Amino acid sequence: MRNIKYKLMTLAGAGVALAMLSSPAAAEVSEEAAFVFNTFSFLVHGVLVMFMAAGFAMLESGLVRSKNTASICLKNIALYSMAGIMFYLVGYNLMYVDVGSYMGSFSLLYNPSGAELDLINADEASDAMVAEVVGNGYSVMSDWFFQMVFVATAASVVSGTIAERMKIWPFMIFVIALSAVLYPIQASWTWGGGFLAEMGFSDFAGSTLVHSAGGWAALVGAIMVGARKGKYEGGRVHPMPGANLPLATLGTFILWFGWFGFNGGSQLALGSALDAAAIAIVYVNTNLAAAAGVVTAMILTQILYGKMDLTMCLNGALAGLVAITAGPDLQNHFIAIIVGAIGAALAIFAVPLLDKLKIDDVVGAIPVHLVAGIWGTLAVGIFGGGSFITQLTGVVAVAVFMIVTSAIVWGALKFTVGLRVSEEEESLGVDKTELGLEAYPEFGQGSLKH
Amino acid sequence: MRNIKYKLMTLAGAGVALAMLSSPAAAEVSEEAAFVFNTFSFLVHGVLVMFMAAGFAMLESGLVRSKNTASICLKNIALYSMAGIMFYLVGYNLMYVDVGSYMGSFSLLYNPSGAELDLINADEASDAMVAEVVGNGYSVMSDWFFQMVFVATAASVVSGTIAERMKIWPFMIFVIALSAVLYPIQASWTWGGGFLAEMGFSDFAGSTLVHSAGGWAALVGAIMVGARKGKYEGGRVHPMPGANLPLATLGTFILWFGWFGFNGGSQLALGSALDAAAIAIVYVNTNLAAAAGVVTAMILTQILYGKMDLTMCLNGALAGLVAITAGPDLQNHFIAIIVGAIGAALAIFAVPLLDKLKIDDVVGAIPVHLVAGIWGTLAVGIFGGGSFITQLTGVVAVAVFMIVTSAIVWGALKFTVGLRVSEEEESLGVDKTELGLEAYPEFGQGSLKH
Amino acid sequence: MRNIKYKLMTLAGAGVALAMLSSPAAAEVSEEAAFVFNTFSFLVHGVLVMFMAAGFAMLESGLVRSKNTASICLKNIALYSMAGIMFYLVGYNLMYVDVGSYMGSFSLLYNPSGAELDLINADEASDAMVAEVVGNGYSVMSDWFFQMVFVATAASVVSGTIAERMKIWPFMIFVIALSAVLYPIQASWTWGGGFLAEMGFSDFAGSTLVHSAGGWAALVGAIMVGARKGKYEGGRVHPMPGANLPLATLGTFILWFGWFGFNGGSQLALGSALDAAAIAIVYVNTNLAAAAGVVTAMILTQILYGKMDLTMCLNGALAGLVAITAGPDLQNHFIAIIVGAIGAALAIFAVPLLDKLKIDDVVGAIPVHLVAGIWGTLAVGIFGGGSFITQLTGVVAVAVFMIVTSAIVWGALKFTVGLRVSEEEESLGVDKTELGLEAYPEFGQGSLKH
Repeated sequence: MRNIKYKLMTLAGAGVALAMLSSPAAAEVSEEAAFVFNTFSFLVHGVLVMFMAAGFAMLESGLVRSKNTASICLKNIALYSMAGIMFYLVGYNLMYVDVGSYMGSFSLLYNPSGAELDLINADEASDAMVAEVVGNGYSVMSDWFFQMVFVATAASVVSGTIAERMKIWPFMIFVIALSAVLYPIQASWTWGGGFLAEMGFSDFAGSTLVHSAGGWAALVGAIMVGARKGKYEGGRVHPMPGANLPLATLGTFILWFGWFGFNGGSQLALGSALDAAAIAIVYVNTNLAAAAGVVTAMILTQILYGKMDLTMCLNGALAGLVAITAGPDLQNHFIAIIVGAIGAALAIFAVPLLDKLKIDDVVGAIPVHLVAGIWGTLAVGIFGGGSFITQLTGVVAVAVFMIVTSAIVWGALKFTVGLRVSEEEESLGVDKTELGLEAYPEFGQGSLKH
Repeated sequence: MRNIKYKLMTLAGAGVALAMLSSPAAAEVSEEAAFVFNTFSFLVHGVLVMFMAAGFAMLESGLVRSKNTASICLKNIALYSMAGIMFYLVGYNLMYVDVGSYMGSFSLLYNPSGAELDLINADEASDAMVAEVVGNGYSVMSDWFFQMVFVATAASVVSGTIAERMKIWPFMIFVIALSAVLYPIQASWTWGGGFLAEMGFSDFAGSTLVHSAGGWAALVGAIMVGARKGKYEGGRVHPMPGANLPLATLGTFILWFGWFGFNGGSQLALGSALDAAAIAIVYVNTNLAAAAGVVTAMILTQILYGKMDLTMCLNGALAGLVAITAGPDLQNHFIAIIVGAIGAALAIFAVPLLDKLKIDDVVGAIPVHLVAGIWGTLAVGIFGGGSFITQLTGVVAVAVFMIVTSAIVWGALKFTVGLRVSEEEESLGVDKTELGLEAYPEFGQGSLKH
Repeated sequence: MRNIKYKLMTLAGAGVALAMLSSPAAAEVSEEAAFVFNTFSFLVHGVLVMFMAAGFAMLESGLVRSKNTASICLKNIALYSMAGIMFYLVGYNLMYVDVGSYMGSFSLLYNPSGAELDLINADEASDAMVAEVVGNGYSVMSDWFFQMVFVATAASVVSGTIAERMKIWPFMIFVIALSAVLYPIQASWTWGGGFLAEMGFSDFAGSTLVHSAGGWAALVGAIMVGARKGKYEGGRVHPMPGANLPLATLGTFILWFGWFGFNGGSQLALGSALDAAAIAIVYVNTNLAAAAGVVTAMILTQILYGKMDLTMCLNGALAGLVAITAGPDLQNHFIAIIVGAIGAALAIFAVPLLDKLKIDDVVGAIPVHLVAGIWGTLAVGIFGGGSFITQLTGVVAVAVFMIVTSAIVWGALKFTVGLRVSEEEESLGVDKTELGLEAYPEFGQGSLKH
């Protein structure tokens, strides 16, 4: 029998469980075990989120044309790397250390706690040393690792939108600004204990702080850099289909897989029955919202366009995931289905709207991360997880900050080093001109001949 | 020194370990810690199984022709989504709640336990509230999550077999029937505590309940929908090679990776030394059986065909994995090698047999999941894990049920909405006709010109 | 607020944590819980390392030409399988059981401990049985699983270097020798407690024992088998670009993902606050070194060649990872950045050097695994993790052993069955001649026409 209830009830029947319950020490999770659980949760969930970098890379590789594929691969691994280094050097302290209402401390470097180093380096660990470390509840660097992969996600949102026409180095400078300063400051308002936290703004794993923050940066970037040549020529929208849809599918699955870390780890603890049960609820909601996003996209594209659209269905999954990210801890799973479905629907309706505005978003990151991110954050207010007005305030505050600051950075880059490759380079493909190579040198028409 | 024994013996020598053993409370896993371990095992292993959906998607994407690639991607993400929603709405209760001999309860929705919600929502958690939650042994939704990814696997088995000629929506209706009703009912007989469990039928992680159940549904579907046009023309078998073998390889590796969750998590507990040691044995057997499957396939295809066949070797790994799934807890690892090797051999011999019967299985799912699944279940009886007759009874019972019920569903679809695209659509490729796009629009001959 | 400190301080403030600390039994991790943590760490981290096999497969699939892609896929799944079986049959005992100064015991088979089997099979588990199992500190087969995936990694290093011209079966025989005998003997010197361990040689997760050991085998193999036809024709280096760079990018991300298991699991324990905190430090250093490798490669290739090179940046990440592997436990994260950056720089400079020597390394495995592996091992001596002379001694000892023994094996193969396909077969591509198929039969020029 695989129904685990029977197995455990038998144990209980044998008196084992009841006997243990009568001994409080044995019934509880010891403080040191909770430390290990909490730390391991940060690490395991953090690794899942880290793998989302591969998911973004594959999604974007599949949705750009082959002549720009190698560049988007490079941008993805480069942004993950750069974001990690900058968040180490500057970002973490700015987001979490001595946070006032609006930001933390501008200081270089973050290191393991002295207590942990003392314990690790001691010839003999005294009880007091262990107690000092354990008193923190989790290893400080495991928390750093988990927070670091979030800033990389925010940066990943940007790369897909502005693909196929932006130069690599200016993009890297934007990533530096985003991960070192922009993201940490706005995130400190909520997760660092700043003014939005004090207002009661609620964003469990970052529909607003990660996804819509990245989405605003992408939107401003898309406007600043302009549409791809030919995309809106002659007043019509010219589709520029991605070169490799199985890779885009793989990327979506990897993101979905990683999202269990993104949302599950955001419980920030695993060391008690309450935390473990809460994480399980988060996993289930995360999965149901994404699933609802896919089914919604299938039905909607079938109705709207007469045919199902694979790319829309992939983005439906992602929009469902982004939408549930602000409140995956809600306890009615049915609502998770609704939140995911509406998130996907909004993302699908946002695609033609962006085209009408001639905002060229190569992979659909703005509908998915910005639109569904806003929806998910507001949904927390609608479905009883907080005040709607407060949720709206948080959304607007982050929006204003990200629009203004990213406009400054994009603008400064545009009017100095320039954002965009030349028309000829764009025609040839940025792989050829920026990297001097082709992503698929042997396949068919090849990228050089487009 | 990396030999961990030395490290821990040193600790023991210092009297630490011995002292702890003399204190029973400190030596045992507390009941709440066991709850956390059990729950986390469901979640971590469940996430690995979830990623198998990506593995199936890549395996099938790589083994179909390019003109049908986007459709198989869509089917895979759609079936995972739909199966998850249906198992939430209907399937779980039918499989696990109030199971009599033949099925559970037909009731909508499954929610976290009230005790867990009370604990999560309490301003202050009382000992009694914690004790009530902890008394269940694991979080109920973590169990739901783990069981849900299994039904998705069963549905994935079907999609590859009937690729390249079946319409998407009828396939989706079959997935709904399979995940809401067919799979849960037959699985309840064993894992829900029904009549096969009472007989002593043993299927650790589902060689029969998941893989051969899916395999029977695929077999009936393949017969109902018929072979691809041209496959058996003129009395000969015409190979239709897959378009992207590295993706098929990736898919196989992802499935292997996920299978540690599939089999390891099926121990259903991690909260004791016994459970942890048992899971370790499961991991090792799982890996050895798959490895033996690959080596067997290499040697056999070299002998039979004079050349090694990559696709057969990938399927050899999968057949080894399917075969060991019924009994990965056996304690002689040598037997795992034998079970995996024979599973792969049987799968390889089944391929020409299916062709002789003109049953067109695009990716080889029937040899891998059905044939090796039956073998693995019987092997438990052969190698001392249960009565052979009981094992055979279980195999036959599931076979009869799945053949009859899936024939009813496939048949109802065939004679109403129809299963198959038109001949012209099949020629053009279902990507073009069902989705209106191409998976690889820029590569070479392109899917449209085949 | 997401700043977990607040949450836990509140708990502590409520007296819960302090009360528990005053009860030593409740404050510590019980011995059985530590057993579960340690075992689960081996399993979870081992699964991550297992997935590196997929990473190598994708990296190499992307970097070879399309006409040799299916063969490299087959080699990768075959080597992982064969290495696992041989390490089970022979390698583990040779590496860990009754190790003298130079090797362990030549005996077949490794099985779970009798104590664990007794516990698993007991009708009723006595305290004494549990205590005996728990006294070992971890499940023996979880350790086996974790060590097994390392030998597979060493074998993976070889396959890429000698791609596109070596026959499959001779390669498989080399893998058997490597995983059954060569790798275990040299690894026993350090991790089995042999003479290098006694000298104090330090190699945390195997910069030398895994990566440079595999690298030496690859170097000797590359020399023995010779360069690809045309690679160094006319005294010039002719680039032979890989066919699928997104797959190479995916492979790199998978390797990076798996490396958290590789380095994190090498702490060999998770069952205490000290171990958990140490693993967190390892994760952070692993990530920073890889990130520094990418950024270094971007800057260096921009400066040296005027354009960034995607392949070099991917190898920069890997070189950073290899370099930090000997000492990811160092406590100054800034040094991790430096170690990774220098590792990447050395790997980049090694590429033209190898070309000057006409050593044809298809995927750059020698620069990445051998050169950065040596650097990382020496860096431990430079940055205070051990004596530089001892580190150098270990590097040289492994070098001498691996060069001599792998030369014997490669040589014996060369002068009996032969290593290399015929010139005509090489022209046609080994997929066609060894496997009788194409990896991408529909794409463009197709592999047959090259």
